[in-house]
Amino acid sequence: MTEDAYVLKTVAGGVATLTLNRGDRFNPLSGEMLTALQREVDALRHDESVRVVVLAAAGKAFCAGHDLKQMRAEPSEAYYRKLFNQCSKLMLSLQQLPQPVIARVHGLATAAGCQLVAMCDLAVASREARFAVSGVNYGLFCATPSVALSRNVSRKQAMEMLLTGEFIDADTARERGLVNRVAAPEELDAEVARLTASILAKPAVAVSMGKQMFYRQLEMGIGAAYQLAGQTMACNMMDEAALEGVQAFIEKRRPNWGG
Amino acid sequence: MTEDAYVLKTVAGGVATLTLNRGDRFNPLSGEMLTALQREVDALRHDESVRVVVLAAAGKAFCAGHDLKQMRAEPSEAYYRKLFNQCSKLMLSLQQLPQPVIARVHGLATAAGCQLVAMCDLAVASREARFAVSGVNYGLFCATPSVALSRNVSRKQAMEMLLTGEFIDADTARERGLVNRVAAPEELDAEVARLTASILAKPAVAVSMGKQMFYRQLEMGIGAAYQLAGQTMACNMMDEAALEGVQAFIEKRRPNWGG
Amino acid sequence: MTEDAYVLKTVAGGVATLTLNRGDRFNPLSGEMLTALQREVDALRHDESVRVVVLAAAGKAFCAGHDLKQMRAEPSEAYYRKLFNQCSKLMLSLQQLPQPVIARVHGLATAAGCQLVAMCDLAVASREARFAVSGVNYGLFCATPSVALSRNVSRKQAMEMLLTGEFIDADTARERGLVNRVAAPEELDAEVARLTASILAKPAVAVSMGKQMFYRQLEMGIGAAYQLAGQTMACNMMDEAALEGVQAFIEKRRPNWGG
Repeated sequence: MTEDAYVLKTVAGGVATLTLNRGDRFNPLSGEMLTALQREVDALRHDESVRVVVLAAAGKAFCAGHDLKQMRAEPSEAYYRKLFNQCSKLMLSLQQLPQPVIARVHGLATAAGCQLVAMCDLAVASREARFAVSGVNYGLFCATPSVALSRNVSRKQAMEMLLTGEFIDADTARERGLVNRVAAPEELDAEVARLTASILAKPAVAVSMGKQMFYRQLEMGIGAAYQLAGQTMACNMMDEAALEGVQAFIEKRRPNWGG
Repeated sequence: MTEDAYVLKTVAGGVATLTLNRGDRFNPLSGEMLTALQREVDALRHDESVRVVVLAAAGKAFCAGHDLKQMRAEPSEAYYRKLFNQCSKLMLSLQQLPQPVIARVHGLATAAGCQLVAMCDLAVASREARFAVSGVNYGLFCATPSVALSRNVSRKQAMEMLLTGEFIDADTARERGLVNRVAAPEELDAEVARLTASILAKPAVAVSMGKQMFYRQLEMGIGAAYQLAGQTMACNMMDEAALEGVQAFIEKRRPNWGG
Repeated sequence: MTEDAYVLKTVAGGVATLTLNRGDRFNPLSGEMLTALQREVDALRHDESVRVVVLAAAGKAFCAGHDLKQMRAEPSEAYYRKLFNQCSKLMLSLQQLPQPVIARVHGLATAAGCQLVAMCDLAVASREARFAVSGVNYGLFCATPSVALSRNVSRKQAMEMLLTGEFIDADTARERGLVNRVAAPEELDAEVARLTASILAKPAVAVSMGKQMFYRQLEMGIGAAYQLAGQTMACNMMDEAALEGVQAFIEKRRPNWGG
């Protein structure tokens, strides 16, 4: 990986951090950036040494959405379809990863940048972060971001952001469900580390089975959801780590997960 | 239109304001009122000069729901089915309008009146507004209003309002997602105007494509939702206004939308 | 019923209170507890003298979830499937009861105990109550509780609780939609009584028709939801109590419901 790679990857203690690396341009999701990010996500999918993924960004902003200059250079519907399909595939890949993905949002997240935050399983924001789905300001309704946003916040709140293009601040994003935690800028990494440490302390099988089941059951009627969840939980319970964990709980000791 | 019309309509600067005009009776949704409102909504559907719709009401209250006197005069299940179908059709028509609809709620909104607010895309409330689904108080569970309410607020909050018939105030309605903004009574029109101005500044195609897509994708699984949204966005991007808007963004100038 | 019954039942003034009665063990949902609770819920289903159900618990905690000791003693997937099916059936039975069910949460509610709260129609919590889906702490992702939790709170909030196993306090649970009201410990019974009194003042037909319709329409597209709701409401309106209630409303008098 060269220093000017679109996405930087570091792994430490079971945590992979992917960093969008076009900070000077507010990390636009160009074709190249999408390709690079997809490649990293695909590689993580089968990397059992990685237990949690942090999605971060270099520079002043988190991500300002699509690369409008690139988009404007090739004005064809076929190209736009391909681009949005590529982007949607990446967004869904984050949800389909067995590992939890935490957005580390230190600055502005707009349009598809806001969508990235919405698609992560968890999000921690700096108090200085701001969020908007602002495509409508230049005549392009944030349609694909709205899919993610409307599954995080209530429909009138989503509609207001989509129609006005206005920003909300980090605390508002937290109250509405778009982010989990807000921290002072200098505390952002510590807050992310608290979350990753908490997840690292849990067995991988429980976490990955649970995450996968969670999004599937959300799209089912409650009866079918309970069937899937019951099967998942029975299967999870037969896992070595759960049997040891429950035994340890009964014996009031720490589980011996060989960690 | 006569002064005693059930619904008054004014159009100014691309904004149509529909005003429920039975203020002395708290604007009940009688058969006549529903018919008048449906006619106005249908007329707006193809009126390209109108870019935003404001739903307002005369008198002290916003809307107290169905016309119970009229309902009680014809106690037949066939009549009630027809009435609720007529009302549901109107409610869905608000959502199907290409233009965003903003509820301007200056006072009490109960039962189907609360439903009207819930079905609008956006809502601005006076601090003096109050909301209830109070049919259960006289033995009639607010079933059709619950469809709209439960798509705005969380299920336990909806259930509490439906079972107790109790009021919530404007700030509570905002926190829960039933309204977007709350203003002092004397600031209500200015707050509505800020929202309409923001929407008027956006190209019509982006707004109407976006609104239509938004409610369709909400009822889909996330995979299908992304497909629809991607197609919509590719189509939107090919629109003259978007191509110009994106070009203007790149050139750091205001878009020339001939407005 | 003996004093050491798993579930105690008292009925007074139309309110049945079911009390989980293994307070010394934090009321685990053992096979025996699930069976006892299912029996009581089934019996209430056709008991027209009962208008509201309160789900309470003895001892210091509300409910700490499954009986891990019992679960660990029979480590077979077939047994776990049967157990989670039994538990899911009970959870759905609460939602399917014609009477509203109010959780009275005086203390800790974890894992399937938190799920119980989420599945009740309404919940009132003591300020000292705390909530967690903590199975992941011992390697067992709270899959079935997640079905209920994710239908009460936003997905990121649910995911955080499920992945970290951390507690939220009563006020946070109220803000997020997991409980309706929070009271000081010494005010808990009075707050529950206010809710039950409010529901008792409404006709039984409206309440039971409404509750049943509410959960069915939640799983439908909005068009189908309106059809069901319109039919339900027309049917409800033909009920004696509604006809009298509406008449009384018109005549500005109290309805004569023979109560």
